[in-house]
Amino acid sequence: MKFTSSSIGHEISAVIYGVDKKLINDANFLKGIVMDALKKDKFTILKYIDHKFSPRGYTLNVLLSESHLAIHTYPEHGSIYFGLYSCKCRGHGKQAYEYFIKKLKPRDIMVDMKDIVVKK
Amino acid sequence: MKFTSSSIGHEISAVIYGVDKKLINDANFLKGIVMDALKKDKFTILKYIDHKFSPRGYTLNVLLSESHLAIHTYPEHGSIYFGLYSCKCRGHGKQAYEYFIKKLKPRDIMVDMKDIVVKK
Repeated sequence: MKFTSSSIGHEISAVIYGVDKKLINDANFLKGIVMDALKKDKFTILKYIDHKFSPRGYTLNVLLSESHLAIHTYPEHGSIYFGLYSCKCRGHGKQAYEYFIKKLKPRDIMVDMKDIVVKK
Repeated sequence: MKFTSSSIGHEISAVIYGVDKKLINDANFLKGIVMDALKKDKFTILKYIDHKFSPRGYTLNVLLSESHLAIHTYPEHGSIYFGLYSCKCRGHGKQAYEYFIKKLKPRDIMVDMKDIVVKK
């Protein structure tokens, strides 16, 4: 697949707190909203891998033409890590992140967004 | 697999610049040093996915018991993005990062390391 990245990408690193117990333990639901979220910013999904931990916990990595998305759940803390890096352009991925948040309605959020400069 | 994360993890987001052209275009070499780097911090590798872009460019995501690692190459700019998040403990992943850097001898580096608090 041909894909040309720009010289500046966008990285989002977030932890959302106070997620509903039913939702945080539903791997299919989480995978579904991640895939739907990626559509909001027209990402191209190449492949994904995931893993369910015993007795609980879910982790998902999606390889994108525009880089990657990862989520890791912490049911014991009621929180989810969300990491998304897009090499497409400044700000790309924000809509995906906002969709993810909207669907999970967390009590609190720690989020860090920044430009990633790959040409120097 | 049973894995209990701590309440504070560690995230490394870096771009390394001025990487040797031969190395940046050698996907097997890059995959090899990523896997070796992960051993330096005793990460548990669950699965990985990668993709070679045409005409050039390589991307690799490794799913870990302790979260994930991702690299994305930009041969057109001579740079590589390196992202590693470990939910194991403060500072975990630094040795893996340092090994990666040592093997690639970049001209310049942009690196950001921070704690990720998953319990709040």
